[in-house]
Amino acid sequence: MPLETIGKAVCLLSGGLDSSTCLALARRDGYACYALSFDYGQRHRVELEAAARVAQALGAARHVVARIDLRQIGHSALTDDLAVPKGRSAQDMSHGIPVTYVPARNTIFLSFALAWAEVLEAPDIFIGVNALDYSGYPDCRPEYIEAFESMANLATKAGVEGRLRVRIHTPLIRLSKAEIVKLGRELGLDFSLTHSCYDPDAAGRPCGQCDSCLLRRRGFEEAGIADR
Amino acid sequence: MPLETIGKAVCLLSGGLDSSTCLALARRDGYACYALSFDYGQRHRVELEAAARVAQALGAARHVVARIDLRQIGHSALTDDLAVPKGRSAQDMSHGIPVTYVPARNTIFLSFALAWAEVLEAPDIFIGVNALDYSGYPDCRPEYIEAFESMANLATKAGVEGRLRVRIHTPLIRLSKAEIVKLGRELGLDFSLTHSCYDPDAAGRPCGQCDSCLLRRRGFEEAGIADR
Repeated sequence: MPLETIGKAVCLLSGGLDSSTCLALARRDGYACYALSFDYGQRHRVELEAAARVAQALGAARHVVARIDLRQIGHSALTDDLAVPKGRSAQDMSHGIPVTYVPARNTIFLSFALAWAEVLEAPDIFIGVNALDYSGYPDCRPEYIEAFESMANLATKAGVEGRLRVRIHTPLIRLSKAEIVKLGRELGLDFSLTHSCYDPDAAGRPCGQCDSCLLRRRGFEEAGIADR
Repeated sequence: MPLETIGKAVCLLSGGLDSSTCLALARRDGYACYALSFDYGQRHRVELEAAARVAQALGAARHVVARIDLRQIGHSALTDDLAVPKGRSAQDMSHGIPVTYVPARNTIFLSFALAWAEVLEAPDIFIGVNALDYSGYPDCRPEYIEAFESMANLATKAGVEGRLRVRIHTPLIRLSKAEIVKLGRELGLDFSLTHSCYDPDAAGRPCGQCDSCLLRRRGFEEAGIADR
């Protein structure tokens, strides 16, 4: 990791494969990274332990876990007592937006990232969204990210005063899962630190059958890399 | 209040004069109102009691207080150990953005409102922002609100599926404080239920000297109405 940084960046970090690769990329590019995770009532809360491990391993300048309770207003298989779909094929996944969708989640996450970016005077925000393997999630699309960036640059005191122009970086947005795995390896990311499953058992072990587990497995297989 | 409603609306409600008037207006116009307040570590937490009183008095369909901890990432006189400015003139207030500004607060609040609107399938969101008396707050300006609305309509599953087009209503945005007071009285709002002070004492009594107290006092004076 570089000793000299080019500036501060707020990096959204779930502890999964994509956000961890995104953080590794921001570190490789020389940013001092302020990692931000959310305890939002997700059933796969074990991902927060993965986020802490990854933030430390990659040398994040700081790691904050913001507590927000989306269960009060949300409705999703990730936060409520809905069954997480299992064993779906790539074709199944390409039809419609799954019940694991959390309403306005990326908008809420990016809003907190924007607040922290303003306090830190960090012009760069990294988010590991991917429009290819999760084409169903509306808040992973390039047009959404562009609209958020436009709004963000009208939203802050630092912006109005000309001290901060925010840029939302989405370096993984057009990569396949296999390409993300290859990129992670190039960057030296220790995949065993990450957690992807939506529905782990009580010990935190992945179910192997949810969309997230299946996409991860296919990504590693296509990349020809072992997932320990 | 009307017996027949024209639809559901999410109404941001701090418990202050502006958001309470905004809720009264949405009720008068026939919306079933889902009031949303935030426990964000504000020193004037007593405003949440006012919000609960106002939501009940105005017949909100539901009132949720979302817990989010902005102290972890924020920096503001409203959440941190910074002094709240006292005794400022209207001219003082017109210079720059005060330390009571909370980074990206309205973006965070509107993001939660958007999530709840999606779950409720409520196309209307009301926020009592005012660009006149708080010209310093960037996230109270019309151009910011328009940008948020554009982003919001790219952000949700319900939007992508064509079930929901969100509109952000800002009925107070161009009113003076005196006009808001007059409107509140027209709507039958009981002002004594509301709370405006940024820096109340331990018993919840207003300080009378912060910007919010002074703007409220001047508004009532100009409107020629007594503030009990």
